[in-house]
Amino acid sequence: MKIRKAVITAAGPEQRELPLQRLVDRDGAAKSALRLLLDEAAAAGIGEVALVVHPDDRQRYLAAAGDAPAPGSAAPRVTCLSQPAPRGYADALLQARAFVGDEPFLHLVGDHLFLPRGATRPAAELVAVAEREGAAVSAVQATREAHLREYGAVGGPRVPGKERLFAIDAVVEKPTPTEAEQKLFVPGLRAGHYLCFFGMHVLPAALFEPLAVALHAAADPRKVSLTEALATLPGRARWLALEVEATRFNLGEKYGLLIAQLALGLSGDDRDDVLAQVTELLLAREKGRASR
Amino acid sequence: MKIRKAVITAAGPEQRELPLQRLVDRDGAAKSALRLLLDEAAAAGIGEVALVVHPDDRQRYLAAAGDAPAPGSAAPRVTCLSQPAPRGYADALLQARAFVGDEPFLHLVGDHLFLPRGATRPAAELVAVAEREGAAVSAVQATREAHLREYGAVGGPRVPGKERLFAIDAVVEKPTPTEAEQKLFVPGLRAGHYLCFFGMHVLPAALFEPLAVALHAAADPRKVSLTEALATLPGRARWLALEVEATRFNLGEKYGLLIAQLALGLSGDDRDDVLAQVTELLLAREKGRASR
Repeated sequence: MKIRKAVITAAGPEQRELPLQRLVDRDGAAKSALRLLLDEAAAAGIGEVALVVHPDDRQRYLAAAGDAPAPGSAAPRVTCLSQPAPRGYADALLQARAFVGDEPFLHLVGDHLFLPRGATRPAAELVAVAEREGAAVSAVQATREAHLREYGAVGGPRVPGKERLFAIDAVVEKPTPTEAEQKLFVPGLRAGHYLCFFGMHVLPAALFEPLAVALHAAADPRKVSLTEALATLPGRARWLALEVEATRFNLGEKYGLLIAQLALGLSGDDRDDVLAQVTELLLAREKGRASR
Repeated sequence: MKIRKAVITAAGPEQRELPLQRLVDRDGAAKSALRLLLDEAAAAGIGEVALVVHPDDRQRYLAAAGDAPAPGSAAPRVTCLSQPAPRGYADALLQARAFVGDEPFLHLVGDHLFLPRGATRPAAELVAVAEREGAAVSAVQATREAHLREYGAVGGPRVPGKERLFAIDAVVEKPTPTEAEQKLFVPGLRAGHYLCFFGMHVLPAALFEPLAVALHAAADPRKVSLTEALATLPGRARWLALEVEATRFNLGEKYGLLIAQLALGLSGDDRDDVLAQVTELLLAREKGRASR
């Protein structure tokens, strides 16, 4: 089934400012982090995007979404949905239930930036695999043990004959290294590495019912995880993990914006200029002065 | 005379977003670029700050000004003034005329970030010199010829017996290297360097009258420069240039935010962490992969 819609969640109190930050794209154009996410969705053939935001942020998000798309990139139609109360990530996603209808959809977290290693953007790769396999697919990345506490992590066997595709049989939210070692088996991964969520999923609309039930039953809705709902899907829907050929940058980390911008700059048209400026600053620091 | 007030201009169409961008300060605290400017003013003993902004930006600027001040730093009282129409930099400054009254005031441009090389912040150094000399003082920095097109530049003799202080006798807005060589003499500067504005001045209230006259007479108010008004001050008021021991970062340059954040990070408490992350990214790029 063709994936036509995407949902970007950005209502969390800690993350509201992040999609509005300005970055210079690989082609040298200045734009919001949100526009980079919309370009990512457009590259995957998405025509309609819902942003789930804090009620006070609608105008700012619509303005940030108004930045010009990357050359050759279509601009998906953007809808702004409000999360009435700060009830967490699962509740934010649930706000998009009517927008999604009964179709599978692409979900991107709003506080990440995604950079392909090759020519294909990770959302495009993920959507193509989800359409081909007719399954829920979560993008994952082999992540060092030291970063496990920041992400959800999955385990499972490789899908025979399919490169970088895994059948998820276990998922743990922000595991300890011990938990990960005991529960998350993935054949052929480098030692000390686990498959962690990349911040990008193709999800079935059937997810919303167990998500609503879990939220209704929860003492604290902010503790309900996406993975919990996925695990209760009727008949244990097929749920795959795709190791995408890309890098994610969590803008919410302390120096997340700096590192994301540096990565964009070093992989784009201005790489020589960026490298020269960074090197000059590092040298000046070595000389004990911050002069340019 | 004690300098108690500051004016920050940030209404230009190209610069409206810049003071609202999030940065991590040298102590590791996340805050707006505007808050860093307010901290800079507070360190100079300023108690009241007027922000001149686009009428639509008042709420966003007041929110950004609400970030916590740096530890040990006072929070100046902040007033938001609107520039009714986009009539340029000189007109923006003129909006602060009633706020300033008849006192000399500190003026900071809103699209810069200032980083001291030593313990004293440049605004504090500038204000101390202005109070001691009872003169208008512009902060300047020896700047390479290649960057002349970005700044106003001044020339003049050194003030005898005063370190890094110059009596301005010529000023050219964004000169060509030839103009600079012909008009801007500064004894003892490194070859190929000129004293360019740093984005920080102590100005007399008497400046507003010639500024208003120049704006009234101008066909295009956006072409009226601050230096033009300073040059017409009654009786050619004493106007000095102080070479501050600091670095300015123009956030409006293409990679201005990146370089400013990198400089902050490399000069602060997290320098080892920032250096490790940057080095890892540079190495990954060398290896042809963007993985972390």
